[in-house]
Amino acid sequence: MIETDILIIGAGPCGLFTVFEAGLLKLRCHLVDSLPQPGGQLTEIYPKKPIYDIPGFPSVLAGDLVEHLMDQARPFKPGFTLGERAETVEKDEEGNFILTTNKGTKHKAPVIAIAGGLGCFEPRKPPISNITDFEDKGVEYIIKDPEFYRGKRVVIAGGGDSALDWTIFLSNVASEVSLVHRRSSFRGHLDSVQKVMDMAESGKINLVTNAEVTGLNGDDQLSEVTITKQDHGEIVKKADHFVPLFGLSPKLGPLADWGLNISKNSIEVDTFDYSTNVEGIYAIGDINTYPGKLKLILCGFHEATLMVQSAFKRIYPDKNLVLKYTTVNGVNGF
Amino acid sequence: MIETDILIIGAGPCGLFTVFEAGLLKLRCHLVDSLPQPGGQLTEIYPKKPIYDIPGFPSVLAGDLVEHLMDQARPFKPGFTLGERAETVEKDEEGNFILTTNKGTKHKAPVIAIAGGLGCFEPRKPPISNITDFEDKGVEYIIKDPEFYRGKRVVIAGGGDSALDWTIFLSNVASEVSLVHRRSSFRGHLDSVQKVMDMAESGKINLVTNAEVTGLNGDDQLSEVTITKQDHGEIVKKADHFVPLFGLSPKLGPLADWGLNISKNSIEVDTFDYSTNVEGIYAIGDINTYPGKLKLILCGFHEATLMVQSAFKRIYPDKNLVLKYTTVNGVNGF
Repeated sequence: MIETDILIIGAGPCGLFTVFEAGLLKLRCHLVDSLPQPGGQLTEIYPKKPIYDIPGFPSVLAGDLVEHLMDQARPFKPGFTLGERAETVEKDEEGNFILTTNKGTKHKAPVIAIAGGLGCFEPRKPPISNITDFEDKGVEYIIKDPEFYRGKRVVIAGGGDSALDWTIFLSNVASEVSLVHRRSSFRGHLDSVQKVMDMAESGKINLVTNAEVTGLNGDDQLSEVTITKQDHGEIVKKADHFVPLFGLSPKLGPLADWGLNISKNSIEVDTFDYSTNVEGIYAIGDINTYPGKLKLILCGFHEATLMVQSAFKRIYPDKNLVLKYTTVNGVNGF
Repeated sequence: MIETDILIIGAGPCGLFTVFEAGLLKLRCHLVDSLPQPGGQLTEIYPKKPIYDIPGFPSVLAGDLVEHLMDQARPFKPGFTLGERAETVEKDEEGNFILTTNKGTKHKAPVIAIAGGLGCFEPRKPPISNITDFEDKGVEYIIKDPEFYRGKRVVIAGGGDSALDWTIFLSNVASEVSLVHRRSSFRGHLDSVQKVMDMAESGKINLVTNAEVTGLNGDDQLSEVTITKQDHGEIVKKADHFVPLFGLSPKLGPLADWGLNISKNSIEVDTFDYSTNVEGIYAIGDINTYPGKLKLILCGFHEATLMVQSAFKRIYPDKNLVLKYTTVNGVNGF
């Protein structure tokens, strides 16, 4: 049993900053995240993209921001349960929450802070009957490391910026890139669309429009895909990788069953302290909702800060809490 | 007449970040501040002190944070009226606010955002009848540049950290440093107190306790101070500078007369959009109050961000506002 003061579900930017603010009040934190590393969306989806609206950073790469937040949290020695999804929560006789993950790891804390971002992400998958058989055997829904595709034959599907950008990028890495899109027009930036069209024209990539990937074949590892063209029959194409980039679909996941008031896939909170309708459970960052809510990282930082004050009073009802300024008192870790 | 969309009173961190968030919505801003430069307290009082609780900055010097915020605001070309205090506000027939400073500069805007920090700072002054005659002629209440005191005879008064720290620092800069304190014990850090005691012992500084500076003399420029010791009469001491460091006293100033609901020297706001009771006037950052309020810079950033959404709807009631992410859309200045 892992025990802590505040159990944070979600190790994204908001969860990480909670560790720091809780630490200033001498509260310990442990984070649970279904992803294998801290940082949430920022690390998983767009680590190399710049963010421009973090106060004090005219521009910061998402991955760097996570590093900074990890550095800021470090003095307060957070614990992590990574690659496991928070599954069930119950209360013990002392009023502590017992949270169990999908892998059976148990955690105990008087306070839970849900900082789950947009929830557990699930990539939108094309309706190919045997697609799950090839996951991690040639089928990927997110491109993490382009080098993984060096010298390989890659089929990308999709019509948005992600599909266009990766097609352009991988054309210099993979041995062969094909882009399959079920329409003939794209939803991406005009210059990306133009670039893909030019590359198709010059033969640097294969562009197959008005078509869908409908079949996957291979012996253990993916070796070919079937592409069905509207009214023009099927093509079978050799491929080492099939990467459908149809976006990510956020899911609240098991949290939806915890008795929390939910509206529009988000958890309702009171802006006084970002508490939910379940006493002792708070929700901060993109996963919560209230009148005027903006799903911005900087708002989550504020919410985390007010939340830990309330958590402190819940954990130590008899202690007096005086706000101390770090500029005056410094930061004293554990 | 200076015209803008949002007139921001106070060019501290919160006011500066408002420029950025307003700019993302294509709203222009103009800032009015009684201080001669942007940055508020951070620039005026503690530019070289590190802040540890800005999210994403394990440590940042206050002055550097202001620089970063200025860089972030720059694409949106904010206007500044500096060194002038916002004095009166009235409405014209179109419903715009007309704000006039103490120097008569007029500004017009449909929205006012008060980001006045702790208000206009006023140094606590010792009750010496002619002290104002010597202001900027040998009497300073804030030490901005220690080099200003090189080779000079300096009398410091006070018993807190500020008096102790400057006494220690200036002992290596000024030709002579005297510290006058009306008690025999100090309120500062123990090691600073010890250091001052040691320096007095070794004759590096003059320490005069149980005493007060009660008179100032000089012909145009300060040349001597009178120190009255409890029960021990007066000493007249040659001095080029007298620096009473009795702290700063925050004052709401003229804002207190604008018909805003005030409690505990702060402006009451609705946390939905940080609006005050006067339609079109918002208050953000340290100057506002609401249940659970924490006077932290990071909270002001959140408040500024929600506030500009509301300001946009007030300025363009018929336009639809869709939140766009900078990571997707970038930052497009004016």
